[in-house]
Amino acid sequence: MSKHLAKTMKAVGFYKYLPISDVNSLMDIVVGIPVPKANEVLVEVKATAINPIDTKLRATKSQIETEARILGFDGSGIITAKGDAVKTLQPGDHVFFTGDLRRNGSNAQYVVLDEVHVAHKPTNLSFEQAAAMPLTSVTAYESLFDRLLINEKDKGKTILIINSAGGVGSIASQLANAYGLKVIGTASRPESVDFSKAHGAHFVVNHKQDLEQQLKENGFSEVDFILVNYDPYKYWDSLMRIIKPQGRICLVVDSSGLVDLKPLKAKSITLVSEMMSTRIVYNTDDKYRHTEILEEVSRMLDSGELKSTLTKVITPIKADTLREAHRLIESQKMIGKIVLSGF
Amino acid sequence: MSKHLAKTMKAVGFYKYLPISDVNSLMDIVVGIPVPKANEVLVEVKATAINPIDTKLRATKSQIETEARILGFDGSGIITAKGDAVKTLQPGDHVFFTGDLRRNGSNAQYVVLDEVHVAHKPTNLSFEQAAAMPLTSVTAYESLFDRLLINEKDKGKTILIINSAGGVGSIASQLANAYGLKVIGTASRPESVDFSKAHGAHFVVNHKQDLEQQLKENGFSEVDFILVNYDPYKYWDSLMRIIKPQGRICLVVDSSGLVDLKPLKAKSITLVSEMMSTRIVYNTDDKYRHTEILEEVSRMLDSGELKSTLTKVITPIKADTLREAHRLIESQKMIGKIVLSGF
Repeated sequence: MSKHLAKTMKAVGFYKYLPISDVNSLMDIVVGIPVPKANEVLVEVKATAINPIDTKLRATKSQIETEARILGFDGSGIITAKGDAVKTLQPGDHVFFTGDLRRNGSNAQYVVLDEVHVAHKPTNLSFEQAAAMPLTSVTAYESLFDRLLINEKDKGKTILIINSAGGVGSIASQLANAYGLKVIGTASRPESVDFSKAHGAHFVVNHKQDLEQQLKENGFSEVDFILVNYDPYKYWDSLMRIIKPQGRICLVVDSSGLVDLKPLKAKSITLVSEMMSTRIVYNTDDKYRHTEILEEVSRMLDSGELKSTLTKVITPIKADTLREAHRLIESQKMIGKIVLSGF
Repeated sequence: MSKHLAKTMKAVGFYKYLPISDVNSLMDIVVGIPVPKANEVLVEVKATAINPIDTKLRATKSQIETEARILGFDGSGIITAKGDAVKTLQPGDHVFFTGDLRRNGSNAQYVVLDEVHVAHKPTNLSFEQAAAMPLTSVTAYESLFDRLLINEKDKGKTILIINSAGGVGSIASQLANAYGLKVIGTASRPESVDFSKAHGAHFVVNHKQDLEQQLKENGFSEVDFILVNYDPYKYWDSLMRIIKPQGRICLVVDSSGLVDLKPLKAKSITLVSEMMSTRIVYNTDDKYRHTEILEEVSRMLDSGELKSTLTKVITPIKADTLREAHRLIESQKMIGKIVLSGF
């Protein structure tokens, strides 16, 4: 691996946290190719997806980095080197991966990843299609099966997915649908409604209107599960009324305000938060569940049970295309995933 | 059953919601003996336990009742009549029971109960010992096994029980201990610490001092489960630090203030509320789980796996003894359960 030490690579990064309109907010840079440690692999990046977390991590602040900060926590590529302790991955393997928010990411020709983040790329998908999936898929899968604890007994039950056209929502809808749940989505624009219906939602209500009323009109007085992919503060009272007794609510997005827990009590409601990186950041005993989920997502993408939510590819990976992608995410008009590919 | 229609019974009730110092807050009254419907039984009350919920329901307010309000949602007795649809209970059966907060209760010679609230009294316990257990036991059992979802895989894990000397806490401690968990309790007075240690807590920390610090001193940096039997608002930040990643927190007591959900996110924490009456009030599909739990508690009391938390018996059941019991509960100095028995 020492051959990489002296080598450099192209990347897109920054030193100052600036608005995306500033050309220095994301810059073309050249940095050393990182070297994998024992449990790590070096991946040649083929495609990198852009997520809201990228724009949040780039958000304007006064802090200055002495070393370039490189974002990108979702991507695909080919393993070119591995640490001694890595057993299930080999150089030459085509992979897709999530990433570690604390480290430099895949907006670069090469990225070093802990093996826990990496699984085999679905063979039937392009690098671009595959790159769009890991972060949102692991989040959606964990939300449904590890947080809401949906299991065999829940087939036929109903889940309300707030913002079902979003990154996590559009995959959670597909997973829940494929598992046998009735999926009620929410969206507001016609094109979001269409996208959501094409990605697992059995029907879609408008989250800018009264949710309870619309559910009733569709024959649902209550739902068994709710997955919240938008500020729960805005929906708190509705959620409390809509959820069934002993129901479960999973929050993927933080609440912007303080909430009253009292309404949880009468119905013995469960509220659970989902953070994709919990297992890895806290190095939990079940850390490799992350990888298992990603391999399962790969299998489902290959079998067609799950389809890629990729809607836009921009090439190549460089500062001006990445700034364009960040602008699109920040506009909140984007439907589906943006992927950048090639150098 | 018509023989009861014309008959009257002694009871303790009220028409106005008054401070316990007022003699009219709980009065000796004579009312008609209620008649069981198809799914109900009529029970001759032998003993009735007093819980904090009784004092809360009696709390001073301007409302006036036109019919006497009779409290008491925990007791024991003998079935004297049953509705046609009742299958598993028979007249003559010695039973113990929880109650329906919306209806009149067991501070009376007779009480009508939906069969779901009633199970067979543990044969090795007195009516008084048995009467002390149903409400707190079902709450504790549901909290551990139906809300925190503690199962075989959790044996050896750690639970922190806030207010482990309290009604629910002292039974949850016993249940968790018997199930194979490490039980950390909290109390502040020496006599509460002793009571908690005698009822399942492996060790007890002081909830008036820093919880995190005390846990660390006892070799626990984090706990897998937390059962909160005291205002969670007072402990919120501590709870968020003490709970393990992917840990579960059950709230038995409401939060007195609004809370910030953000700290749930990084560790993907589950927060669940427990209300004993959820299944019955909402008539859920699994309503009879309530009765199953009460029968299991009866079995555990007979086998000695669980012991009664009764500490004080007052006789007979009449207005002045019941006012004394309410005063003791309101003083918050009571340790263990108060039961009134006999007429």
